[in-house]
Amino acid sequence: MAPLITLLTDFGTADGYVAEIKGVLYSLAPGATIVDLSHEIPAHDTELARLTVARYWRRFPARTVHLIIVDPGVGTSRAALAVQSDGRFLVGPDNGVLSPALLLGDASVVTLPISPSASRTFQGRDVFAPAAAALANGATLASLGEPHDAPVVRRTREAIKRDDGAILGEVIAIDRFGNAITNLIGVRSGVVAAAGRPVPVRATYADVASGSPVALVGSSGLLEVAVRDGSAAGALGLQRGAVVVWYRG
Amino acid sequence: MAPLITLLTDFGTADGYVAEIKGVLYSLAPGATIVDLSHEIPAHDTELARLTVARYWRRFPARTVHLIIVDPGVGTSRAALAVQSDGRFLVGPDNGVLSPALLLGDASVVTLPISPSASRTFQGRDVFAPAAAALANGATLASLGEPHDAPVVRRTREAIKRDDGAILGEVIAIDRFGNAITNLIGVRSGVVAAAGRPVPVRATYADVASGSPVALVGSSGLLEVAVRDGSAAGALGLQRGAVVVWYRG
Amino acid sequence: MAPLITLLTDFGTADGYVAEIKGVLYSLAPGATIVDLSHEIPAHDTELARLTVARYWRRFPARTVHLIIVDPGVGTSRAALAVQSDGRFLVGPDNGVLSPALLLGDASVVTLPISPSASRTFQGRDVFAPAAAALANGATLASLGEPHDAPVVRRTREAIKRDDGAILGEVIAIDRFGNAITNLIGVRSGVVAAAGRPVPVRATYADVASGSPVALVGSSGLLEVAVRDGSAAGALGLQRGAVVVWYRG
Repeated sequence: MAPLITLLTDFGTADGYVAEIKGVLYSLAPGATIVDLSHEIPAHDTELARLTVARYWRRFPARTVHLIIVDPGVGTSRAALAVQSDGRFLVGPDNGVLSPALLLGDASVVTLPISPSASRTFQGRDVFAPAAAALANGATLASLGEPHDAPVVRRTREAIKRDDGAILGEVIAIDRFGNAITNLIGVRSGVVAAAGRPVPVRATYADVASGSPVALVGSSGLLEVAVRDGSAAGALGLQRGAVVVWYRG
Repeated sequence: MAPLITLLTDFGTADGYVAEIKGVLYSLAPGATIVDLSHEIPAHDTELARLTVARYWRRFPARTVHLIIVDPGVGTSRAALAVQSDGRFLVGPDNGVLSPALLLGDASVVTLPISPSASRTFQGRDVFAPAAAALANGATLASLGEPHDAPVVRRTREAIKRDDGAILGEVIAIDRFGNAITNLIGVRSGVVAAAGRPVPVRATYADVASGSPVALVGSSGLLEVAVRDGSAAGALGLQRGAVVVWYRG
Repeated sequence: MAPLITLLTDFGTADGYVAEIKGVLYSLAPGATIVDLSHEIPAHDTELARLTVARYWRRFPARTVHLIIVDPGVGTSRAALAVQSDGRFLVGPDNGVLSPALLLGDASVVTLPISPSASRTFQGRDVFAPAAAALANGATLASLGEPHDAPVVRRTREAIKRDDGAILGEVIAIDRFGNAITNLIGVRSGVVAAAGRPVPVRATYADVASGSPVALVGSSGLLEVAVRDGSAAGALGLQRGAVVVWYRG
């Protein structure tokens, strides 16, 4: 099987930056399969990028190279990283987007050298893509740079159990369908207070009437607030950071 | 030639759902070529999905597997289907999006079993993608599930011929350029009344002045109302469902 | 290595036009690798398409076939072209989008014949894609059509040096991040007057405070006006065509 290089960026595609990166990848790693994951991460939204990476990075086969370029700090002193974790590789800036892979115990991290000839505004093309191509071609992580001791690691804030048994959480993302994904884990009954109203926890959308709010365990194990056949974000006015409280009901 | 798996969804790409599906496909069908067709179907728009599938499903080579996930009923009792028709395979929910393939006489349909461990909100990842991978790997349709007798089939409403010879039709889609695609077939002359004004039927955009409305046979054989160098939807206020009437003029 | 066919269009993906083109390409050139570059060029924006092509066309390996379909003149008398330049092929309409390749001295150009059976609204599918597939399959440029003498070539307007040493330029594109890309080349110091205010030329974003405007050499060698951690287009009100003046400061 050809080695895989996946791409996650906040570049959009119209300006040609992604096209330049692909030109570099196909030129330097002609045997690799290049896989678009998204170029529609909102500009500079490293937090959504981190949550998105968490979803997919281990679903790909061993040896896959994940290139992740959401990089508001390009041209500053932030480091450029390559990571090996659980048999996969990740390449991207040291701003937390690689956290899901860095949190595993077996993760190794190196700092990629930045050539003086690299663009100060587009290291995706000149630094990250060549490193990804090298890994796809079989280079070892150690051959790419010096070990890095303290990469930036960000975590989703944990929900807090209160004395009365309720759990205090928050909305961590709104998806395209308007589902509000929370940091509440492992609840399959009870009620969630969201935007000032009680929302029942159920097994699936079909357990409530069309247009009604429902909370349910989403596809990554986190409790989501949804509206059947509608948008919870729109109907309830939920956004990232909104407080949600679970209680037994 | 490597087997092809095409993807049509309403997921967008930023949330990582498509990335998860691709991880599953590359893991289960490492020899397949994965082809993005669109992830930008408007959320839950099964009708546009159906029309889009009609455009492309038979343009791909025999044995192509078309994965189509526009699925507002996920988690309800709607069936999950795999279809074999005209030498191609289609996998998706039983809500009409697979209709273009189901309308052919040789179509076979099976119901995919849904494992209790499958996510109630993301069968694209846990049910449809594994089935598509199996078909790409050479599994027979019959091996995937039990035959399904009565899948949901939707058709474009037919235009109606009136006693006076006029034909009463409607706008079935607005494309990105603002062209209003109608259900009128086989007219190459005359006039179309659209949004209260007469629009001449011509062979091509160049037959009218820039900024002028024109009706012409589009690339799928349906009459379209367009504005040269402009948007018919914007200039004439046309939207899906708007009545259009053809007459000899 | 499999031959590459890249795709740049203004079609979006939801309407199925790109899907149809891919069906044609996979059917006619089953051994090729099809690469999406963008389908999100704004409708009919041949100028942004031209600038985008300039960024990527030579970054891909020799023998790559670049299919470029931004074609407001489809169905008019404008020619359909195939170009060979610097070892790559480009296929698209004769409206200037292929200019970056046509400007090289070694460029060869042929006119593609348009079959009477080709759609008058969708030559991307019926004319351009089959030509791209033929080139990927090894056809020579000369086998595709008759030589074309005078293709449309557009150039970025050159900045003008004034008697006082200042250079008068303009904004030629706004990218997704709100950076205003200008036609000023080769300046690495001094000041740029943009939207009525002086913006210092620096090496990188990090040379100014967050929220401050800065001008710097972008990744294609052109001076850009940016705002660190923000949008220059938004903050300064810059748009395509806005005048910028460089002076020694």
